[in-house]
Amino acid sequence: NMVIHLISQVEIPGPKSKTLFNELSTVQNSLAVQFFVDYDKSFGNYLVDVDGNVMLDMFTQIASIPIGYNHPSLVETIRNEENLSTFINRPALAVFPPGDWLKRLQSSLLAVAPPGLNEIQTMACGACSIEHGMKAMFIAYQRKKRGGEPPSKEELQTCITGVPPGCPDLCILSFKNAFHGRTMGALAITHSKPVHKLDFPVPYWPMASFPILKYPLEENVRENQAEERRCLEEVEDLIVSWNKSGRPVVGCVIEPMQAEGGDNFASAEFFQGLQKVCSKHDVSLAIDEVQTGCGSTGKFWAHEHFNLKESPDIVAFSKKMLTGGFYYKEHYRPHEAQRIFNTWVGDPSKVVLLEAVVKVIKEQNLLARVNDTGNYLFNGLRGLQTQYPYLLSRLRGLGCYGSIDMPSMEVRDKVISRLRAKGVNTGGCGEKSIRFRPTLTLEKRHVDIFLDRFNSVLHET
Amino acid sequence: NMVIHLISQVEIPGPKSKTLFNELSTVQNSLAVQFFVDYDKSFGNYLVDVDGNVMLDMFTQIASIPIGYNHPSLVETIRNEENLSTFINRPALAVFPPGDWLKRLQSSLLAVAPPGLNEIQTMACGACSIEHGMKAMFIAYQRKKRGGEPPSKEELQTCITGVPPGCPDLCILSFKNAFHGRTMGALAITHSKPVHKLDFPVPYWPMASFPILKYPLEENVRENQAEERRCLEEVEDLIVSWNKSGRPVVGCVIEPMQAEGGDNFASAEFFQGLQKVCSKHDVSLAIDEVQTGCGSTGKFWAHEHFNLKESPDIVAFSKKMLTGGFYYKEHYRPHEAQRIFNTWVGDPSKVVLLEAVVKVIKEQNLLARVNDTGNYLFNGLRGLQTQYPYLLSRLRGLGCYGSIDMPSMEVRDKVISRLRAKGVNTGGCGEKSIRFRPTLTLEKRHVDIFLDRFNSVLHET
Ligand code: FES
Repeated sequence: NMVIHLISQVEIPGPKSKTLFNELSTVQNSLAVQFFVDYDKSFGNYLVDVDGNVMLDMFTQIASIPIGYNHPSLVETIRNEENLSTFINRPALAVFPPGDWLKRLQSSLLAVAPPGLNEIQTMACGACSIEHGMKAMFIAYQRKKRGGEPPSKEELQTCITGVPPGCPDLCILSFKNAFHGRTMGALAITHSKPVHKLDFPVPYWPMASFPILKYPLEENVRENQAEERRCLEEVEDLIVSWNKSGRPVVGCVIEPMQAEGGDNFASAEFFQGLQKVCSKHDVSLAIDEVQTGCGSTGKFWAHEHFNLKESPDIVAFSKKMLTGGFYYKEHYRPHEAQRIFNTWVGDPSKVVLLEAVVKVIKEQNLLARVNDTGNYLFNGLRGLQTQYPYLLSRLRGLGCYGSIDMPSMEVRDKVISRLRAKGVNTGGCGEKSIRFRPTLTLEKRHVDIFLDRFNSVLHET
Repeated sequence: NMVIHLISQVEIPGPKSKTLFNELSTVQNSLAVQFFVDYDKSFGNYLVDVDGNVMLDMFTQIASIPIGYNHPSLVETIRNEENLSTFINRPALAVFPPGDWLKRLQSSLLAVAPPGLNEIQTMACGACSIEHGMKAMFIAYQRKKRGGEPPSKEELQTCITGVPPGCPDLCILSFKNAFHGRTMGALAITHSKPVHKLDFPVPYWPMASFPILKYPLEENVRENQAEERRCLEEVEDLIVSWNKSGRPVVGCVIEPMQAEGGDNFASAEFFQGLQKVCSKHDVSLAIDEVQTGCGSTGKFWAHEHFNLKESPDIVAFSKKMLTGGFYYKEHYRPHEAQRIFNTWVGDPSKVVLLEAVVKVIKEQNLLARVNDTGNYLFNGLRGLQTQYPYLLSRLRGLGCYGSIDMPSMEVRDKVISRLRAKGVNTGGCGEKSIRFRPTLTLEKRHVDIFLDRFNSVLHET
């Protein structure tokens, strides 16, 4: 166990980061940059910046690093000459796949498929995973509507210009505070912050309320049940009214926990109820696990916490999974070629890295560790919440995935910046939450460091 | 010079490919698969399939391989331990960029920036490059409209649900037969084949005709000028009428040569005229160089052939550039953080590979080779067109990039399949064209092989 010297009481970004920031700003908008990183020196759960500051990373590239920086297994994967050609030659995967493609899928994506979902479509990021997942729902809906008949000549002609009947007036239902990506279709179902959609002519589709629960949960049981019931009724009302208005609701896309929108958790009963409403109205149910998937909640897929009667129809992923894509039920497999398609449809080099990640997760039983470390983390946070009731509230989480609220955005941002100066990197979400998104390899000794620094920042705040 | 034994008179896909196809089809729709590839054995301009067939590759993963399979410089790039951490740790690039990021950009993307465009936004594929390029145009348009004022409270509120004024009713003009990608916004400006848009509720935006020229050009000068004039008038009419109808045309997106839509070429005068119309009506002009960029037309960017009065406002790229992204004029830089943004906004590991590619292109003066080899290729094709006037027509191309037409889709598909059996891999586009999309390292000796096999297939057809 090496001793880590976390930086302490310095200003971040440091002088080198500041110089680099000014230089980068000559060729692009760099206003989102927090600091510049030395990825050669970063290791495990520690991020090292260009000024030599070492930070425990509880944000991990917006929740996208599965097993830590420069993990030995990943070093080995890159160095392994057998993988060389995969990193060099990116194929048009749906047209000229490599001979070992199915084998690679079996030891990566298919080895961790959500229960009940046996088919897989690879993609390259969260946005295209969601976009093409929605397309799969539209295709299945129209196929069913045609009852086995081929599309009409009129449909084939009108779809070129983009009008009905070829491009029918269909929609997807989504939720307030949802975030699903930044391309036009993903934006249509995104409703968290103005910065995402302002100024863009985004399709207008129905938006239901997502439950905003009161904490602590055990003291607000009745109110929270009422809140979730209200939201489910809204979902059903919207489906009925949009269907009536001639713009049928084809699918519903939802995050198991709303992440960007403020780490909003709902109960298993809510999701069970949602599935019931969807199936009653023949609405497909897609779960967006881009931020929640790959084990951080203590189950490989967050929706596994919900004990759904049957699996969701589509489960989309990206981030920690290194590649994008979605799992789907057979009904959502297009019957024709090239409808869910693009040049690359993913990247085998990312799947090769995922193979190594999945192997480490299984061999080291990391899901058990996530639960264990997560308990320790949230117990500690509960203690701090009791100690600083005027600063902390609404602690919520599953596994190592969760959030705590501050009194205001201003305080939250100050705390994040002070934590950074004490060697802990965290990120905000929603209006005033700090979210915890460590890797799956976080240990109790890391939690001790974090809690110690958090305590000291809270003490000073 | 090694001797290449191209396969000849065999069936492709071969037995191993067929078995793999059946197996892969158990977990996904694999109907677009042509054959399975052995990427370890593929080299230079030769693709080797899992059955051991060696094919000269004139299609190169839908035009996305810049300097050939397993190029020694790329092998070295992967093996170079200094690059190791870049391949392992994919950052949230806009938040925690690596310290060497600007340097990497300067020796890759910025080293080949189109004249007049000094700013760069990285993305990850063609679709997100186009989507975010359009967003940059919408942002600049609304900022100008606000005249320096911040967005109103009403705008900030309404954009969450996705209705005006926050999500204003704006549009982008595009062209018949255009292809720009498969996500919802990219689909709104795509109008080539039903397979792309059928069944999807895509935004309806204006579509103008793209010139369909008659060949040989020198015998159809007057008709082609009239055709291009007609298209430009249509563009202007559409801008005027959509502006009047309250859905202003913010930008125009166009391919320098329409690729998927049938390799439609227009003259430099057409593009000069288009720029004039756009600037007259204050419409931004974006060039989609996803398939045409990176040297295949003999200039690094295809639009450099057009001698435009000033540079286009936005130039998007992907494929051979290995990363996605777009160059833009300063006016299109958002003034706020995180508006053109997502978790990864590209991938430094692809930029490291692009660095090596750009170095090879410059050091080996590959653009000169592309022009030289291209002349040789198209001269040879001209000869075949004269020899087989009942089979070949409308030969067109620039550099090594171009197409030739067959009498029908059926004949075209048969010719592609016979070419493959003789050891040459090509791809179709449009209704009945074969497109040529070799790497930049194609040489005359490869052209000789191709022309010989093409001749023999035409002879048998
Ligand atoms: S939209 Fe996902 S990588 Fe481009």
